[in-house]
Amino acid sequence: MIELTDIQSPADIKGLGDDELRHVAHEMRRAMLQWVSTVGGHVGPNLGVVEATIALYQVFDAPEDKIVWDVSHQDIAHKMLTGRMKYFTDPSLYRTIGEYTDPNESPYDLFYAGHTSPSITLAAGLAKARDLQGEEHAVVAFIGDGSLSGGVAFEGLDAAATLNSNFIVIVNDNQMAIAENHGSLYDNLLELRETNGMAADNYFKTLGYDYIYVKEGNDLPSLREAFQKAKASKSPVVVHINTQKGEGYGLAEEYRERFHWSVPFDVTNGNPKHDSGEPTYDTLTRDMLIELIETDAKTLVVNPATPGSFGFTPEVRKRVGAQFWDVGIAEQCGVSVAAGAAKGGLKPILAVETSFLQRAFDQLVEDLSLDNLPATLLVLDAGVYGIPDATHLGLWDMVMLSNIPNLVYLGPTNAEEYKAMLTWAHNQTSHSVAIRVPTTSLTHAEGDVDTDYSTINIYKMAHRGSDVALVGASNMYGVARKAAEILAGQGIDATLINPRFLSGVDEDMMRGLKKNHKTVITLEDSSLEGGLGEKIARVLGPTGMKVRCLGLQKEFIDRYNAAEILEAASLTPQKVADIAQEMLK
Amino acid sequence: MIELTDIQSPADIKGLGDDELRHVAHEMRRAMLQWVSTVGGHVGPNLGVVEATIALYQVFDAPEDKIVWDVSHQDIAHKMLTGRMKYFTDPSLYRTIGEYTDPNESPYDLFYAGHTSPSITLAAGLAKARDLQGEEHAVVAFIGDGSLSGGVAFEGLDAAATLNSNFIVIVNDNQMAIAENHGSLYDNLLELRETNGMAADNYFKTLGYDYIYVKEGNDLPSLREAFQKAKASKSPVVVHINTQKGEGYGLAEEYRERFHWSVPFDVTNGNPKHDSGEPTYDTLTRDMLIELIETDAKTLVVNPATPGSFGFTPEVRKRVGAQFWDVGIAEQCGVSVAAGAAKGGLKPILAVETSFLQRAFDQLVEDLSLDNLPATLLVLDAGVYGIPDATHLGLWDMVMLSNIPNLVYLGPTNAEEYKAMLTWAHNQTSHSVAIRVPTTSLTHAEGDVDTDYSTINIYKMAHRGSDVALVGASNMYGVARKAAEILAGQGIDATLINPRFLSGVDEDMMRGLKKNHKTVITLEDSSLEGGLGEKIARVLGPTGMKVRCLGLQKEFIDRYNAAEILEAASLTPQKVADIAQEMLK
Repeated sequence: MIELTDIQSPADIKGLGDDELRHVAHEMRRAMLQWVSTVGGHVGPNLGVVEATIALYQVFDAPEDKIVWDVSHQDIAHKMLTGRMKYFTDPSLYRTIGEYTDPNESPYDLFYAGHTSPSITLAAGLAKARDLQGEEHAVVAFIGDGSLSGGVAFEGLDAAATLNSNFIVIVNDNQMAIAENHGSLYDNLLELRETNGMAADNYFKTLGYDYIYVKEGNDLPSLREAFQKAKASKSPVVVHINTQKGEGYGLAEEYRERFHWSVPFDVTNGNPKHDSGEPTYDTLTRDMLIELIETDAKTLVVNPATPGSFGFTPEVRKRVGAQFWDVGIAEQCGVSVAAGAAKGGLKPILAVETSFLQRAFDQLVEDLSLDNLPATLLVLDAGVYGIPDATHLGLWDMVMLSNIPNLVYLGPTNAEEYKAMLTWAHNQTSHSVAIRVPTTSLTHAEGDVDTDYSTINIYKMAHRGSDVALVGASNMYGVARKAAEILAGQGIDATLINPRFLSGVDEDMMRGLKKNHKTVITLEDSSLEGGLGEKIARVLGPTGMKVRCLGLQKEFIDRYNAAEILEAASLTPQKVADIAQEMLK
Repeated sequence: MIELTDIQSPADIKGLGDDELRHVAHEMRRAMLQWVSTVGGHVGPNLGVVEATIALYQVFDAPEDKIVWDVSHQDIAHKMLTGRMKYFTDPSLYRTIGEYTDPNESPYDLFYAGHTSPSITLAAGLAKARDLQGEEHAVVAFIGDGSLSGGVAFEGLDAAATLNSNFIVIVNDNQMAIAENHGSLYDNLLELRETNGMAADNYFKTLGYDYIYVKEGNDLPSLREAFQKAKASKSPVVVHINTQKGEGYGLAEEYRERFHWSVPFDVTNGNPKHDSGEPTYDTLTRDMLIELIETDAKTLVVNPATPGSFGFTPEVRKRVGAQFWDVGIAEQCGVSVAAGAAKGGLKPILAVETSFLQRAFDQLVEDLSLDNLPATLLVLDAGVYGIPDATHLGLWDMVMLSNIPNLVYLGPTNAEEYKAMLTWAHNQTSHSVAIRVPTTSLTHAEGDVDTDYSTINIYKMAHRGSDVALVGASNMYGVARKAAEILAGQGIDATLINPRFLSGVDEDMMRGLKKNHKTVITLEDSSLEGGLGEKIARVLGPTGMKVRCLGLQKEFIDRYNAAEILEAASLTPQKVADIAQEMLK
């Protein structure tokens, strides 16, 4: 029998018999499970598509044939078969590879893929390029069921079908996205599964696609037959494969949401390896949302398909009932229904990851802020402590949220301030409000926190000193505070400011500093460009006050270490203190 | 017979007989045509839905029943029937009302609507609010066929069907969006029309909707019957109405794309009232794109449904053939296929209005810039001279485009520079490039312009003076130049800088100004916040150089006069000169 480490490229599996391939699949699953349980990542989706990936590389001739992976929740088998097996079999290399496709890593990875749903539009671009240049290769988009709810996937299906040339969309249907699938399209997929692909109503056919159903989506001969048929087609075709999420790992087959993605876990019992049980901002978010739902019938919590990220487990969702709406992977819909619900008299709260909110920028502007509707956004995973993958960065949150009229973006610095801000936002009707949920470990306020934020852009001066003022926004307030302590030890009585508002400047306070300050240093843990520090620099520009903005560079960073990034950006207490000393010279 | 001016609210038409209503419809069309031919606006879409709007207000009890208008290309009849008739019948009031729905104007306007496609998601929010609060009214989204191609419309259909309560989507099918409809969904609509709604493949049914087809979409009894059926339904339903775009105005029925939207025109012959025939940046864009297509087989021009805005008329489109791809109203798709096409070896150029580009922010980040693919974006209608409606502002272009890693955003200041930048962008492979197409009247360079922009963030010092430096970006370069002339007359030799790069700062040049300058003034005609001036203020912050950033406030402005806005922002040559004098004191 072939060893996994013998597989250097798809060529190495092309000629194997099915017995041998089943052995390979089994071994791949074993390696995959070791890897993902050690470093954390997507469990169920990856286990489900091992056979589909093998069949894909037997039938198609990559990289000449173009295979576009969606979202990368399901591409470990792909990475294993395309020259990167050793990273998943040799524990010493485990942490040197990531889950997401990366064109710098392999010619088989055509695009970075981290967000759901772009595979079809990207593949449409490739197909158009092929046709205009008179090339002949196949173009395949490999998309998961959950990704189909994203609007761009529909846009891609709609546009690509008009190309009238070979265009293959493989829909990996594992019967759920992250949590259960939401949206009526999934009822259609269910109907198709239940009728062995024969249902009269067929979403894909209405959009002009030929349709092939593969009932046994973990069976190699069935998959190969379907893929071969698709490869030969000269018109757009959807291959709908019914796979088992978590296949081969009993716990992941049974607890499919728990094992969609997991922190490192013990394979024998499925328990997370590190769960301190300590309160975090995620558990605080969960508890506050439950309380608002249970004490106020007008509360509606909306979320696009990531309820687990703030503790809305199946049990919690059952408890809160209709006051929680998971709209599926559909962020545009999430923002827009929150706007509509606010107009309808509810008090909606949308919880969404910063990076995914990028998809709803237009709805933030046109549906929410232009109408100035009182919905509250909880912005998750913002800043340097968010998700450290290049595809999921939380570093453009202020770009999106601090520069839109009417929208108030708040940055709490401790648990009590977060509670107070959410309570205020929930009960007011004058503003659209976004709250940057802290991503540091949970801290508590040292004194009372304000409960009323209705006069916007009023910063809090925690300590009034002289010479240098430190403005520490959101996650960086703690760094500013510690820098002030260092400076105090050096005989400098620094002013310490918590801006609280990330979308505007306390112009009076800032200009007032001129009296007895020589310099202002701003600290923020997202991209400097388009952020808060630049606004303060603009306001102070005409005064001649020296301003130094500390924050992150405008660059894509991948699988980074937050401490290193902060060090490089001079966002450590010691470095801030050093800069203050230097600016005062 | 009832006079139009007798109609103050929907109650005034509820009891009218059909003969009288047909008279009303005829008179409404006449008024509409006078209004739109005088002030400019959407012609065909509005003419087509007069009967549908009348029937709607007969059957439903607005504003208790909630009717959400999409895009507002089709809501003049709605405005007429809901208390605003006089603005369309009294020429002295013509210019005091706009086309788009506006909640500050009427309780019948639930949301601002200017962008396509959000009606379904907004209505879903209203329906959820109704259901949670135990209310009983109907919820209606009135959407046009063209809007269905926007991904958020799909997301809304998908999510709203799961509410399992009264939810009505009226699809106004006038057989084209702006130009022809693009996308396979329109083939399904065609099939449904051709089979009187009986086709086996039915997009809406696959998404869980009951379906009612109205063949005679300009026939009042047919419309009322369908709407009544929908009103009584307790489950989601689509009413597909087949209307005549431009109904009642022969020229608009025949030339449907020309009369989708028009500048003021002569009703008798359809000719635009003011067409100087002079070259503009739009005609220059058209000519350059045709040339790039005809001289380079790898050129692909992509546009989401607005080819007319840069002169790609049906004749031009026929001429350029497959090298132009109108993907329909689907900006996410537009950016993503451009990225895919670049990866596939083409040299794609995406032309798109700034305001609509908001919908593709995620694709700008994840599909284009993260992969650093060499596509070129032509950003239309940016800045203060863009579209002066609150729903279509071009003021957040730098927010979106100047703050993303890898993306180079260029701001040409005259025709030759625009040509040079487009030529360079098209032929390089190192960057994703966006070009802010000027929206001033066309001007020419005074000398040679650079042809190579590959070393990024190098500003051009047009004149080296002292004391004060004026940085005039994009459309505002001319203002800076004239301000420098005024200052010269006052004995001040101002430095004049064309930054050219809107996404970064020439740090050496800016810091070098310290030698013999006391102050820097930046000029830009979009939102100050998140823009170029703030970046310059940040870079100069530590130097103590005085910086004054001139630009637009972060606010929604509606149907504004550009000159007034510029005056208020001190963006006139005289005011800039005055500010320079003041800062030098």
